[in-house]
Amino acid sequence: MELYRERGFDRTTVAEIAERAGLTERTFFRHFADKREVLFWGAGALQEFLVAAVEGAPPPLAPLEAIAVALDAAAADIFEARRRFACERQAIIAANAELRERELIKLATLAVALAEALRRRGVTDPSASLAAEAGIAAFRVAFERWVDEPGTETLSEILRASFDELRLVTGGGRTEARRRG
Amino acid sequence: MELYRERGFDRTTVAEIAERAGLTERTFFRHFADKREVLFWGAGALQEFLVAAVEGAPPPLAPLEAIAVALDAAAADIFEARRRFACERQAIIAANAELRERELIKLATLAVALAEALRRRGVTDPSASLAAEAGIAAFRVAFERWVDEPGTETLSEILRASFDELRLVTGGGRTEARRRG
Repeated sequence: MELYRERGFDRTTVAEIAERAGLTERTFFRHFADKREVLFWGAGALQEFLVAAVEGAPPPLAPLEAIAVALDAAAADIFEARRRFACERQAIIAANAELRERELIKLATLAVALAEALRRRGVTDPSASLAAEAGIAAFRVAFERWVDEPGTETLSEILRASFDELRLVTGGGRTEARRRG
Repeated sequence: MELYRERGFDRTTVAEIAERAGLTERTFFRHFADKREVLFWGAGALQEFLVAAVEGAPPPLAPLEAIAVALDAAAADIFEARRRFACERQAIIAANAELRERELIKLATLAVALAEALRRRGVTDPSASLAAEAGIAAFRVAFERWVDEPGTETLSEILRASFDELRLVTGGGRTEARRRG
């Protein structure tokens, strides 16, 4: 991560990453398919965490609420303590088209997994897909704000505001749509 | 498209595509960067159509409604007459991971362009991004249903149902959330 920041992603070689980390190249490739994967190694664990959280959410929760609760738990338990890492990673990804594409694909994969988790809660389609996709959109918007604006708000707080905004926006201008708590 | 269906995307060469279309390879590459682009050549025109439709939507329309109106126009004016093409294209894309990724990226690019169009209507963020992303999610779900289920419903009808479902799902179980019209 330091290397990517110092020299740019394109100009950093696997040999340099391995050296900085005190590994041989062979060990590096035992853990990562390529140098891009270093930036995405947490994606699998995050997905497992979120899927378990959606499945374990209290049964009466509506689909979008189950997604919101899971993302809120990830924000508090996983991301909040790693803000500096998240900011550095985001800057590297934003500067490289190929990495932006990989990030998109990981998020889409995550949405598919969350829709699956909702189906296991008995949610039917298209509700399951729509709730998962809309939830991921709310998360992405919140995450970008958290990374871009170094304020005092926690990711959880920004995330809740983003879900409120999503509910308002998709309320389609209905006057009865109100922010909740 | 015929060739992709007959032999599979991976086994079709640019030389074969050019021959079938009565073109030289050189002419082919003047129009398309690579053989994948043949499947996405309409994406630019679609984006222009949708951006113009969002910008031209009646001013009082809420952000998500402006997106819905634009997608509805595209469904009726662009897609409805091309259902067979859409089905064949979808089958080819579904069978190839690289094409699925490119499709995702094109849809994400489209969402960014629609958020931009909303901002030009005076919509602020995060509403603009959320409305665009949620709208694209509703469109994707509807499009897949239209392609997968050869029924009598038009894409416009399925799309409207998908937006209704989106509003319900993001209503978060509020009892006052009701289908509209």
